[in-house]
Amino acid sequence: MNYKMMGRFVAQMLAVEAVFLLPPILIAAIEGDVPTLYAFLFGLVVALVLMGMLFVLCKGAKSGFYAKEGFTCVGVGWVVLSLVGCLPFWISGQIPRFIDAFFEIVSGFTTTGASILPEVESLPHAILYWRSFSHWLGGMGVLVFLLAIMPGSGFMLHLMRAESPGPNVGKLVPKMRQTAGILYLMYILLTVLDILFLLLGRMPLFDAVCTAFGTAGTGGFGIHNDSIAGYSPYLQNVCTVFMLLFGVNFSCYYLLLLRQFRSVFRDEELRLYFGVYFVSVGLIVWNLRGFYATLGETVRHAAFQVATILTTTGYATTDFDLWPSFSKAILLFLMIVGACAGSTGGGIKCVRVMLLFKSLRRNVRKVMRPKQVQVVRTNGQTVAEEILDNTNAYLVAYVAILIVSFILISRDGLSTGTNVSAVLACFNNIGPGLEQVGPTCNYAMYSDISKLVLIIDMLAGRLEIFPILALFSRTTWTRR
Amino acid sequence: MNYKMMGRFVAQMLAVEAVFLLPPILIAAIEGDVPTLYAFLFGLVVALVLMGMLFVLCKGAKSGFYAKEGFTCVGVGWVVLSLVGCLPFWISGQIPRFIDAFFEIVSGFTTTGASILPEVESLPHAILYWRSFSHWLGGMGVLVFLLAIMPGSGFMLHLMRAESPGPNVGKLVPKMRQTAGILYLMYILLTVLDILFLLLGRMPLFDAVCTAFGTAGTGGFGIHNDSIAGYSPYLQNVCTVFMLLFGVNFSCYYLLLLRQFRSVFRDEELRLYFGVYFVSVGLIVWNLRGFYATLGETVRHAAFQVATILTTTGYATTDFDLWPSFSKAILLFLMIVGACAGSTGGGIKCVRVMLLFKSLRRNVRKVMRPKQVQVVRTNGQTVAEEILDNTNAYLVAYVAILIVSFILISRDGLSTGTNVSAVLACFNNIGPGLEQVGPTCNYAMYSDISKLVLIIDMLAGRLEIFPILALFSRTTWTRR
Repeated sequence: MNYKMMGRFVAQMLAVEAVFLLPPILIAAIEGDVPTLYAFLFGLVVALVLMGMLFVLCKGAKSGFYAKEGFTCVGVGWVVLSLVGCLPFWISGQIPRFIDAFFEIVSGFTTTGASILPEVESLPHAILYWRSFSHWLGGMGVLVFLLAIMPGSGFMLHLMRAESPGPNVGKLVPKMRQTAGILYLMYILLTVLDILFLLLGRMPLFDAVCTAFGTAGTGGFGIHNDSIAGYSPYLQNVCTVFMLLFGVNFSCYYLLLLRQFRSVFRDEELRLYFGVYFVSVGLIVWNLRGFYATLGETVRHAAFQVATILTTTGYATTDFDLWPSFSKAILLFLMIVGACAGSTGGGIKCVRVMLLFKSLRRNVRKVMRPKQVQVVRTNGQTVAEEILDNTNAYLVAYVAILIVSFILISRDGLSTGTNVSAVLACFNNIGPGLEQVGPTCNYAMYSDISKLVLIIDMLAGRLEIFPILALFSRTTWTRR
Repeated sequence: MNYKMMGRFVAQMLAVEAVFLLPPILIAAIEGDVPTLYAFLFGLVVALVLMGMLFVLCKGAKSGFYAKEGFTCVGVGWVVLSLVGCLPFWISGQIPRFIDAFFEIVSGFTTTGASILPEVESLPHAILYWRSFSHWLGGMGVLVFLLAIMPGSGFMLHLMRAESPGPNVGKLVPKMRQTAGILYLMYILLTVLDILFLLLGRMPLFDAVCTAFGTAGTGGFGIHNDSIAGYSPYLQNVCTVFMLLFGVNFSCYYLLLLRQFRSVFRDEELRLYFGVYFVSVGLIVWNLRGFYATLGETVRHAAFQVATILTTTGYATTDFDLWPSFSKAILLFLMIVGACAGSTGGGIKCVRVMLLFKSLRRNVRKVMRPKQVQVVRTNGQTVAEEILDNTNAYLVAYVAILIVSFILISRDGLSTGTNVSAVLACFNNIGPGLEQVGPTCNYAMYSDISKLVLIIDMLAGRLEIFPILALFSRTTWTRR
């Protein structure tokens, strides 16, 4: 294990975090909010000191950076980032217990949006900004950001692969650094567009920026206690559209820029994603007939809620825990499916669901007609067996983590529906679940051990399991 | 598709069913219970007429019987068997609606033990006998029985493979017919032993026979409203031990007969099975401290309930729905794991869980060290990649069926916990679930569509998905 190289990367991630701690410091300073200002300054100092120590300790790192180092580096990096990032919450006294502050920031960086706060409107603006911004930074990834601004080199693919969602991370252009740059450029453009549309609907600037951060990262932390429910239907619809847009694979946007409309239109994952979306909205609208006053209102809420769960954002315009069981079952299903690979969303990802079904169909055929050779194709191309193997392994790890987490948090004695949906909502980076962790509730009543389990779930969900598994694997920490 | 050959097999299965309809007819005749007698005679006549028609129609069947035919034959055969087998329930008026009668007999043959009856003590003895016997017949399999008594031929492996649980059905001895015979012989011996131990505890003969049928098939239909709770602790403990014994791979018993103690003792699946059992009992005893009057009572209930769920039997000595959430979460986990392959139990099966974890570990290693070649071993032998592929495909199909069933039955508006556990309890052939389908409740309140979904789940669970998937696959019904 190349510890020095890993240390350097973590130090660089801390540098990025330090830079992004400046805006909330500015906000606190402008508002003259001294305790919050000190809390953020404390976080900044810790980040800088840690960074300095790591740079000194890891001087003279040799190259030699492989998949193993990539995964471990991403896992360690995200944990360190969160440990530093939660300091402002804790030091300012807004979240008095450390484990809660850690839960909150991990929920932010992993774009989950699950909160332990019973209400948020009394929080200082700097804190609200930092909560929402953590979504934006975590959405596209800290390391991808690093890659975009750093001189490129070969081993970066390992980092990008470990941090980016999806079974097969492609390069958009031959150079990794340019790929990362293009991704962040499109990400920033879409975010700005979202802010503009929100401002057009007369949302205040601070609200618009924070809401857009939460939408872009498919996070879900709101700055109001009723999430998005208090805004006008226009603003809710803008959120619906942008949540859906941020759930799309960003390479589709790149192809659109290159005017390759046909390959975007024919993309099987994109078709599945929108197919699942519209079918789910249809079924829920049908199931909700008579639940709201008008059909228009029903469609608005259904369209919003399906988008927020499918893209794993987690905003709410209504308390969907009061919906009938059928609608809730569909939402639980959508939690698992998740958004497209290469987007900022969580879940298993549409493309994986597709690959799993295609490989199942292949195996059924193989069993029935043992002598025929069968391959799996997507978008007209044969999928490598290695990717199919990894996708299957992903499902095994996914189910195993779900079950173990469910058993562990059940010790607190909450209802089965609460525990199942809490694990699904955290592991798939959604935020609100059902029953006692529904959209009007929060995660505060879980014990510290359960919170730790859910923190690990959120990280495993965002980093797609393997970097977190790597942290717990003996292979990682032993010399070969 | 060789329809004529399939027809012949279904006709033979009906012949077996006709023979086994004789004992309940005898019971009804002895008790002078005329309506029940007529109901069973009606069932017998239908079975014989259908059998005759199929034999005539399928005269001159050519050989040529492959995997595809094997799977389809098993799927169709079990459905036909259940359609005929439910007639006595329906005609006698004991279960007035056909879908309910069909649900009950499928639950019997698939060894699920989920009932739509609010109480059973008022049922005629013939009906009670037939319910319990359906478990015994379904447990080891109708086709395996057929193979044991019929002159053997090559294609029988396809049938055996399709009906027997586990990823890799081995022959105990070179000849298929002898293998089937040995299996049934051991099955009968163990059942008789169970009856003897129950009689020793002064259980009435009829109770002992029915209870042993339910234990042997890991079914779970009781003949008392409180299942096993009314019997003495000795009888409950006998049930615990025999449930565990019937959850063991029967090839282990064959090896014991051959005095190959070492290979039995070292069998990895067996170790996992008993490991999971004792750890679960330990955790639940710890969680239940203070729940019952004495430690002895706690251990007895925990040992019984873990055995009944792990082996997917479904008897109950206590209402475990009242247990704390942690214990219930462990039970839900055990529902999924299930018994050993090659036993009469359901669930994913211990060996599959083991293979899934081993292939996951292999894939994590592969991702971390791409250049090393890794194989998966069990009991010291390399597992064929084909079996690993099939096991992974099994998990995909398993998860997909769970989710789709859950969404479909949610339309009835019952709670999330009820629906999740109902699907798990039916699909894994257990019987009782939690909340509104807990051990003191039944499945009557579900709508007809939901019952049909659960019926398909029970069949898919017992026949390990593929024969039922085959019925719905286009490949099955088209010429190549």
